[in-house]
Amino acid sequence: MVKKLVLSLVALSLVFPAMAFADPTTTSLDMGLNALWILVSFILVLLMQGGFILLEAGSTRMKNAGHVAGKTIFTVGLGSLVYWAVGYGLTFGSDNAEAGINKIIGWGSFFFEPAITALEGDSYPSTIYFLFQLAFAMIALSIAWGGFAERAKLSSYLVFTLLFTSVIYPVIAHWIWGGGWLAADGAQDYAGSTVVHLTGALAAFAATVLLKPRIGKFNKDGSANEILGHNQVFSALSVLLLWVGWFGFNAGSAVSVGDGFFGYVAFNTQLGAAAGAVAALLISWLVTGKADITATLNGGLAGLVAITASCAFVDPWAAVVIGLVAGVLVFYSVKFFEKMKVDDPIYALSVHGAAGIWGTLANGIFATQVLAEKVGVGQGGLIDTGSWHQLWIQFESVVVCGAYVLAASFLILGVMKMVMGFRVTEEQEIIGLDLSEHGTFGYPEQMKKVQQNL
Amino acid sequence: MVKKLVLSLVALSLVFPAMAFADPTTTSLDMGLNALWILVSFILVLLMQGGFILLEAGSTRMKNAGHVAGKTIFTVGLGSLVYWAVGYGLTFGSDNAEAGINKIIGWGSFFFEPAITALEGDSYPSTIYFLFQLAFAMIALSIAWGGFAERAKLSSYLVFTLLFTSVIYPVIAHWIWGGGWLAADGAQDYAGSTVVHLTGALAAFAATVLLKPRIGKFNKDGSANEILGHNQVFSALSVLLLWVGWFGFNAGSAVSVGDGFFGYVAFNTQLGAAAGAVAALLISWLVTGKADITATLNGGLAGLVAITASCAFVDPWAAVVIGLVAGVLVFYSVKFFEKMKVDDPIYALSVHGAAGIWGTLANGIFATQVLAEKVGVGQGGLIDTGSWHQLWIQFESVVVCGAYVLAASFLILGVMKMVMGFRVTEEQEIIGLDLSEHGTFGYPEQMKKVQQNL
Amino acid sequence: MVKKLVLSLVALSLVFPAMAFADPTTTSLDMGLNALWILVSFILVLLMQGGFILLEAGSTRMKNAGHVAGKTIFTVGLGSLVYWAVGYGLTFGSDNAEAGINKIIGWGSFFFEPAITALEGDSYPSTIYFLFQLAFAMIALSIAWGGFAERAKLSSYLVFTLLFTSVIYPVIAHWIWGGGWLAADGAQDYAGSTVVHLTGALAAFAATVLLKPRIGKFNKDGSANEILGHNQVFSALSVLLLWVGWFGFNAGSAVSVGDGFFGYVAFNTQLGAAAGAVAALLISWLVTGKADITATLNGGLAGLVAITASCAFVDPWAAVVIGLVAGVLVFYSVKFFEKMKVDDPIYALSVHGAAGIWGTLANGIFATQVLAEKVGVGQGGLIDTGSWHQLWIQFESVVVCGAYVLAASFLILGVMKMVMGFRVTEEQEIIGLDLSEHGTFGYPEQMKKVQQNL
Repeated sequence: MVKKLVLSLVALSLVFPAMAFADPTTTSLDMGLNALWILVSFILVLLMQGGFILLEAGSTRMKNAGHVAGKTIFTVGLGSLVYWAVGYGLTFGSDNAEAGINKIIGWGSFFFEPAITALEGDSYPSTIYFLFQLAFAMIALSIAWGGFAERAKLSSYLVFTLLFTSVIYPVIAHWIWGGGWLAADGAQDYAGSTVVHLTGALAAFAATVLLKPRIGKFNKDGSANEILGHNQVFSALSVLLLWVGWFGFNAGSAVSVGDGFFGYVAFNTQLGAAAGAVAALLISWLVTGKADITATLNGGLAGLVAITASCAFVDPWAAVVIGLVAGVLVFYSVKFFEKMKVDDPIYALSVHGAAGIWGTLANGIFATQVLAEKVGVGQGGLIDTGSWHQLWIQFESVVVCGAYVLAASFLILGVMKMVMGFRVTEEQEIIGLDLSEHGTFGYPEQMKKVQQNL
Repeated sequence: MVKKLVLSLVALSLVFPAMAFADPTTTSLDMGLNALWILVSFILVLLMQGGFILLEAGSTRMKNAGHVAGKTIFTVGLGSLVYWAVGYGLTFGSDNAEAGINKIIGWGSFFFEPAITALEGDSYPSTIYFLFQLAFAMIALSIAWGGFAERAKLSSYLVFTLLFTSVIYPVIAHWIWGGGWLAADGAQDYAGSTVVHLTGALAAFAATVLLKPRIGKFNKDGSANEILGHNQVFSALSVLLLWVGWFGFNAGSAVSVGDGFFGYVAFNTQLGAAAGAVAALLISWLVTGKADITATLNGGLAGLVAITASCAFVDPWAAVVIGLVAGVLVFYSVKFFEKMKVDDPIYALSVHGAAGIWGTLANGIFATQVLAEKVGVGQGGLIDTGSWHQLWIQFESVVVCGAYVLAASFLILGVMKMVMGFRVTEEQEIIGLDLSEHGTFGYPEQMKKVQQNL
Repeated sequence: MVKKLVLSLVALSLVFPAMAFADPTTTSLDMGLNALWILVSFILVLLMQGGFILLEAGSTRMKNAGHVAGKTIFTVGLGSLVYWAVGYGLTFGSDNAEAGINKIIGWGSFFFEPAITALEGDSYPSTIYFLFQLAFAMIALSIAWGGFAERAKLSSYLVFTLLFTSVIYPVIAHWIWGGGWLAADGAQDYAGSTVVHLTGALAAFAATVLLKPRIGKFNKDGSANEILGHNQVFSALSVLLLWVGWFGFNAGSAVSVGDGFFGYVAFNTQLGAAAGAVAALLISWLVTGKADITATLNGGLAGLVAITASCAFVDPWAAVVIGLVAGVLVFYSVKFFEKMKVDDPIYALSVHGAAGIWGTLANGIFATQVLAEKVGVGQGGLIDTGSWHQLWIQFESVVVCGAYVLAASFLILGVMKMVMGFRVTEEQEIIGLDLSEHGTFGYPEQMKKVQQNL
């Protein structure tokens, strides 16, 4: 990220010689523009948590709705404090650069105390950059909860928030965005198909494997039952909120208004998302004879996840192709995980995992040399350059990051399972987490009627 | 729009001589400001789709909720691709300007491939302008769905998205905003009372007439039954989200931060919306003895629709009057369509149609000469100038645009009705579209109970 | 506010000599940046009304949901017109400055007719400043409704909107932000812990005391029953929306992009909110053995309310401490009001009242001299300076503002109670306000089943 920034600032100063930083007036207004856009982007990414509240609640059952929705506020709160205390410093801290530690992990800026204004020469205030990065970490965390849904103990959310935000996410973010070794290798991940989505999804995978499937999800003969979410209006609204917020996620990652390139990023984002939704609806209609709502919603999200890595690196037609493939991929991925008897209530493994991998690899296929140079990270992909180099880097990036996240998540959650227990009791799961973990139903009037009808 | 822009840029350069485009530094920062505001406006208008998800779902019944909400994600996705492929080019393309075709329809820029940054002299990046215009087209489309609600086949949404986004909306948008013949005549429609709202509403009208009313809406003696929506919290939140997003819709249509005039547009927007909500509540309270919630919500929306054309052309007191009239108008319009036995589940014909016509005509009454010159479109209205000229232009604009949209919609939907069928079967309608079109209920747990109670 | 602005502009012009207002180009771009940020902030604060719709609806019962949600649209509409007509002029009008009246109340600018653009030398267009201030007044009003919930007559909402927006809120806002006597004394309330939150909460207190508790809230022996809200997903989403909008509330109160200081305000806001949510969850878990969802949500909001006064005045560690204390305080405050037999359905007295007082006082403890000088209001607090001066000013501010709001609210609501009646009949309250005040249920399908089950 740092490298990307420096290069893009250099590029800018070539394009607009009059904007070079000798003139303090100009600098201060450029800084103001960037500050405003990055702060708005942070706000948009924070709004995506509203999307997750609705997505998770809508995709699960009424008896768990208050728990599922309310824990987001708590974990975003706790995660923010942990990221402030240690996560940000492990990602971007540079105290030990001389010792060479910075290839592996950042160090410094713990309990971050930023300057109260932008300093001379800053492209934006460090306060705002911190908030933007914090919001990304919180999205990865909320993706991970997909694997916990409807059966993890509340205490496990608390402990995993602490550990994910300090020792899992910052490592990947440092490697790719914090000047770490994958950044040095030229790994392309503009806004986090790997850093945010794959990281969150693999933590979710470890959780759901260790927790085992929900009661009633799989029959003794291995066949799967559909445990329907309780509210598709919530689910559809969630996708819209996530789609809206994603323009902060992707176009905000330009961390600059500059020459208007952030608009191009937004443009590709819209095409990728649109293509994902369309492809998923059509494939589900074609294969099952019914146009499945959940499949369509997952398709839109998968398009967004996939375009996240490549939004700044590819031509518009490629954005459409990336989205279309993501929409088809997520449909079959959901079927695949069900066949593997992996219970994935919020579809995190397919939407953020499969599409996250596809999005990262797609850079190696579709990135153009011109755009790679514009962004200043890596080089053009297979189609534009005929070289397999970038695709290999992208593959390496997925494998190495994936391996670290999987290993760390299994270790941490495995120890938690042994030491403090990870899953609620069977009885608690059946009555629902609202009652068992919090003492009241999230929908008291409606659940009373459910119980009367039993 | 193009003319408006050129004129307002000329005006700006007179006001602030130092901002003239000789200085590249200034240009680039002005461009950055505009880019940022228009991108934020796009995001706000996209957020309005969340308003439509809730408005449509809240105003209809539980058995159709998943369908109603989920189809928005699909149609916004498909519509975005179609608008990218052809809609934008038919609205703003200028390849055939020499052939004189541009008075009637744009041509060019199909499968739009924008420059990746703003070019020298651009007021904003073309990527961002595309997104903003796309968002408007998608709003018109979502308004049209009001006429489809609770009985159209899913396949008809697919086909109508294709055709509305390519051959209906772009024609009107070109005429008024794309340099077409109504623009040349001086038709005033700042942010789309006609282009977006009336166009959407008349497509909805054609659909609801061809589909015929929902089962149970009208009795044999011609009297109407109220088919209540299932969730007024959704409806109220929808109005708030639409209200919020409308500041992107209206103030974004300044497509410039410039001298701060976009703030005046926002100011009038707030007054119009507020007056609409108040007037509708009071008239419903006065007439029926009960302060109807739905009437109040419709009033707020009608105020917003009506002020959309004139927000940049009128004094604050006139914005209040326009809103008050819209609030009363929408109340009686709902009664009128019910008396005419036209089934209008989401009130699209009244909120977007009647108020859209009123808003467009209101310009001819209340526009001031000073503001018409500031915006650079048309001239002052009846009250300020004593001339009927602008009111006549506005009337012409409504009649001609209305005629085209009605004719095109009846033709397209009529052919669709013959060729592929438009309405689900009676049995499918009774069990609801969630089950019949998508295979599961949108609210599975709650509907199970409904069925048990039958 | 005016003083704050002038001082911060002076500060700015010292820091960046090249930005001084001699150069019209620079001025116009600075103005554009400010205009854009303040308009976005207004939009964010308006979005908070969506949070209130969900918070109030989620915290109350299904039979009142349509009423609770819908009245927000109506009261925001009416309040906007009243604020435009008189509220703004009483807060910021300066016609009678010579007569010395301006220490007590503003005068002028009634039926506000702003300049259509920013004038030379303006830091932002007056249209946008008006909208931003209007949004604050509407938040205070929505907080007040917390005390009306589930039993006030609709007509009382109408009358109280008129009076609160003209004779209660503007007085406090003038004293602290409009150049009144508390501003002159150096009272610190950056974004309204007192002006907005305490004012709203004390009006809610007067209302709930005069209305008396809801039927069934307290038993004859004085013990309290929990009347659960009906939808915790709404409640959790509401907190997220409020949290998101709060960045407009707090960081928007910088009313300037300038040197990026607004980012610091946002930074502290995030820390305070996060700490509030964490503290409330932990204290509720510790004390009751269950991690209460409602307590957590209230904690996040209390953190936001408390940090609102001090977000620009304190170090990051202090923002965390202020949030932590607010989270614990709100938990015990809820218990306290219940013990006092005060029925507080939306927890307005605790979230906005108790935390508002704490936030205002916290400035006197934690404000640093450097930041007080940067903002240009008051001085450093007890810890940084060892002086009790600022804490005394803050205390005075709470007491005097509190006394005025309480007196005015009791007087107005008391007269309303005598003249027109304030509370619905017992029968109306039992069947619910949706039916009794508006003629239909907000959830017609679900309530039909409720009734069948009775």
